[in-house]
Amino acid sequence: MIHYKAILKVMGGLMMLLGILMFPSIAFSYYYQSGDQITLIGSALICLAVGGTFFYSFAKQDQNIRKREGYMIVASSWVVMSVFGMMPYIFSGSIPVVSDAIFETVSGFTTTGASILTDIERLPEGILLWRSMTQWIGGLGIIVLTVAIFPLLGIGGIELFVAESPGPTSDKVHPRIRETAKRLWLIYFGLTLALVALYYLEGMTFFDAMNHALTTMSTGGFSTKNASMAYFDSPVIHYTAILFMFLAGTNFTLLYFAFKGRFRRIWASDEFRAYSISLILLICGIAAAMYYLVPGEVEPTFRKAMFQVVSLVTTTGYVTADYTAYSNGLTIVFFMLLFMGACAGSTSGSIKFIRHLTFVKNSTLEFKRIVHPRAVVPLKINGERVTGKIITHIMNFLLLYLMIFVLGSIVMSIAGYDLITSFGAVATSLGNVGPAIGRVGPVDNFAFFSPFAKLFLSFLMLLGRLELFTILVLFTPYFWRAN
Amino acid sequence: MIHYKAILKVMGGLMMLLGILMFPSIAFSYYYQSGDQITLIGSALICLAVGGTFFYSFAKQDQNIRKREGYMIVASSWVVMSVFGMMPYIFSGSIPVVSDAIFETVSGFTTTGASILTDIERLPEGILLWRSMTQWIGGLGIIVLTVAIFPLLGIGGIELFVAESPGPTSDKVHPRIRETAKRLWLIYFGLTLALVALYYLEGMTFFDAMNHALTTMSTGGFSTKNASMAYFDSPVIHYTAILFMFLAGTNFTLLYFAFKGRFRRIWASDEFRAYSISLILLICGIAAAMYYLVPGEVEPTFRKAMFQVVSLVTTTGYVTADYTAYSNGLTIVFFMLLFMGACAGSTSGSIKFIRHLTFVKNSTLEFKRIVHPRAVVPLKINGERVTGKIITHIMNFLLLYLMIFVLGSIVMSIAGYDLITSFGAVATSLGNVGPAIGRVGPVDNFAFFSPFAKLFLSFLMLLGRLELFTILVLFTPYFWRAN
Ligand SMILES: [K+]
Ligand SMILES: [K+]
Repeated sequence: MIHYKAILKVMGGLMMLLGILMFPSIAFSYYYQSGDQITLIGSALICLAVGGTFFYSFAKQDQNIRKREGYMIVASSWVVMSVFGMMPYIFSGSIPVVSDAIFETVSGFTTTGASILTDIERLPEGILLWRSMTQWIGGLGIIVLTVAIFPLLGIGGIELFVAESPGPTSDKVHPRIRETAKRLWLIYFGLTLALVALYYLEGMTFFDAMNHALTTMSTGGFSTKNASMAYFDSPVIHYTAILFMFLAGTNFTLLYFAFKGRFRRIWASDEFRAYSISLILLICGIAAAMYYLVPGEVEPTFRKAMFQVVSLVTTTGYVTADYTAYSNGLTIVFFMLLFMGACAGSTSGSIKFIRHLTFVKNSTLEFKRIVHPRAVVPLKINGERVTGKIITHIMNFLLLYLMIFVLGSIVMSIAGYDLITSFGAVATSLGNVGPAIGRVGPVDNFAFFSPFAKLFLSFLMLLGRLELFTILVLFTPYFWRAN
Repeated sequence: MIHYKAILKVMGGLMMLLGILMFPSIAFSYYYQSGDQITLIGSALICLAVGGTFFYSFAKQDQNIRKREGYMIVASSWVVMSVFGMMPYIFSGSIPVVSDAIFETVSGFTTTGASILTDIERLPEGILLWRSMTQWIGGLGIIVLTVAIFPLLGIGGIELFVAESPGPTSDKVHPRIRETAKRLWLIYFGLTLALVALYYLEGMTFFDAMNHALTTMSTGGFSTKNASMAYFDSPVIHYTAILFMFLAGTNFTLLYFAFKGRFRRIWASDEFRAYSISLILLICGIAAAMYYLVPGEVEPTFRKAMFQVVSLVTTTGYVTADYTAYSNGLTIVFFMLLFMGACAGSTSGSIKFIRHLTFVKNSTLEFKRIVHPRAVVPLKINGERVTGKIITHIMNFLLLYLMIFVLGSIVMSIAGYDLITSFGAVATSLGNVGPAIGRVGPVDNFAFFSPFAKLFLSFLMLLGRLELFTILVLFTPYFWRAN
């Protein structure tokens, strides 16, 4: 049986944390006298009260959380955060419709960054900061999940490439989770602080610097400006954003190594090399294509290409140019970037390089296997042999991802949207990117969708964010029958 | 080293066969006095002369054809057939442009059925019959390949599901190939003859009956009429076509069992069951959707749904209705059918049910594996355990197929076509279907494409027809380095 009380206790703790994380917004709200003070204080108090009640009611519960409780905690965390996190939007009247508020909150916590807001700049400062904060919280949550918790649950088949060592023995699970999580949190927090300072020194207001630092490090992509990062007409801000999107897309275990000065271990990572080299090739190729299609000055074109490529590959979703305005060929290339994702163990979403790498390496090996049918042809990543079980799991993930993309697109088409918009909305939601193609291009928003479509896309964001299996396994009889 | 002379000998034999197979066209040409007699006789004589020269020059070559020669023979067979098979089109002036003639011939031999002809009915009868004959030859070729030869070469990972018994010992390969091939040929020939008789009795002219029988059994889909099967306003003809498309999409080994009265073995096939049940579900669902969108009489709507579904799933590509005219949702569903394919060991193309089944079964098992990480959870098909090597190979095939679809679509977009047309043209070429969506919908043709696009799509047809790996392995260093 499942220990529901232990789960409720964790949820209680999470709600309290959420309430505490509303305080920075309250502070900005008072500073700007933006009129949303009472709303935010009320929301924070509700979180603390409800969360506290749950937490202390079940405080005596044993900590014995097993794999199945782990799955339920992961899934329900995101649901609880979304339900409680949307209070400021609704109470303040900034987003009065519930389906809209759910969409915006899920888009925040999943670090997707798609928005139903048609005029972002109209929102009071407190709410805007809360909106950015949801992404930052979601980003932190996902790093802790993927680096510290997923390896224990065996989710997504990428656990072996994220964890530092093969796998913990069951008796030292708790201290290890805590220690790893602490390191990750420090790096995440430290980089965010550094980025606030940089953005501020480069000319943003402190408020904008803070918001954009929160949504850059989480590869979230929410902006306080309707024009997104294009609003800041400053090359140095753009290059800073590019650098930090790149870092946010790196496996945080590697960032920890970098912090410790062990740079050799970074370049030893096959995924990091694939990520870096692919970005360079994509940027050069796309910059050349953009320059060919719309000749102009070299540096701005190159910067546009670099910004858009890094933003989409890391699934951040900031934009500084309408990448669908060049040509059909370039539009489809940008569309494909929605399926990339950066590294496992980063804040980025979508498929991620480790899986692409596994597929590409295995594909070449399949030819070798055809020519030498009796030879044993193992697949190696980071110098270590990957078991057949993991290869199967990863390839199954890839196919499942594409199948959900296809089925999702069919649902959206039946709901009445044109094919390109359906493809775009589903791909960008599932990949936690933000902008897409068609009617949800880089200069559009998601306001026009029906409430059904908004809820459906929210579900896809959650599905993608939690590596599909984490959510889907809850719908299988295997999960509920197990003992 | 590779025994090129042995390969050339086989090519010689193939050319002679091609020449002989032009004689039925010559007969019709004389009967109708359609003016293409000399052209066809000339083409046949060239095939016989060139083929004979090759065959008898290398007649003394040892028959020791190994795996690598096998691959080269398979790939070059289709190229040689296309080059020699297009002579009637060019010499008669029916299709004077070489890129058009290549497209039409490759589309024929690969049983794709996409056409660059804007007015099919304008062509002389001899040429029309040759056009249908290319599909029939291609269909026969692919059954013999998949059932008798691919299992020996280990292509596509589906060999184990097609062959009757686990695998031959090397010393009795030749007699077994010959015997299996003979059975398949007899069933194929017998069913085609029966279908000529049926179509004729149901009201087609003998000429039309013959043409459509050739292109039904090969799941080719070329028609002698601009309106395709919609020209024949006869329910009984449509239902006959549906039945025989269904049979042509069945594993021919199973048809042989049926012929021998061993029906139990047919229903024991997981793939056949998946194929039959999926068709029923698709037909009912799509018929209901069509009826909902365009209310009308029940039987014609049901027949339309049935015809279109069976035609696309078996990759035949006949049409009796514009399936893109209903709604966005239904269009995308029909588009997805381009990725289905019928059974392995049939004349159909595309992905095929055995691979879909492997993916679907493995997906459910992955959840079981997550919940019970230490349990051994084997995948079984037809009651037998499928090895991890084959699962990996099949999933890799699926991903490679989708990747080629994506890369192909990018190439077509860059070549200047809109996204939907690019997706459609690539999917239908790779899947050997024929019609698609966008500007290559069921009532369109491929005439407007540039010569580059036509040659590119021809290459994709070949790639899809030969299960990707057969062609692609020739581009790898493994193949050329092996001894
Ligand atoms: K994002
Ligand atoms: K076809």
